[in-house]
Amino acid sequence: MCEANAYMLREGKEELFMESVDVVEDEGGSLRVTSIFGEQKTVRARIRSMSLVDHKIILEE
Amino acid sequence: MCEANAYMLREGKEELFMESVDVVEDEGGSLRVTSIFGEQKTVRARIRSMSLVDHKIILEE
Repeated sequence: MCEANAYMLREGKEELFMESVDVVEDEGGSLRVTSIFGEQKTVRARIRSMSLVDHKIILEE
Repeated sequence: MCEANAYMLREGKEELFMESVDVVEDEGGSLRVTSIFGEQKTVRARIRSMSLVDHKIILEE
């Protein structure tokens, strides 16, 4: 599978936000993040970077 | 491999922007997009949505 883990960058540190992310949707200032298991979170943040080969998404508030 | 194709949303249509994307970095208003082959493009756009399971990233100017 090609899901990725999402981390929130807080004070220079990466905190795990959600594992096994499938979908990320920008809803204009907030992001809706959904895992392959159907878990869903909405957060006021932006996608700072991602590396699909490394299975890693970095979010920032 | 877990790369995805990136599409630019223009006038409601998805135009292929880059195949086999690995890394996307938000540089504050512009995105630097890099493929697994090392191809790199910078564009003034944002990530509108992505589905990693579908290997698809949608960008919007």
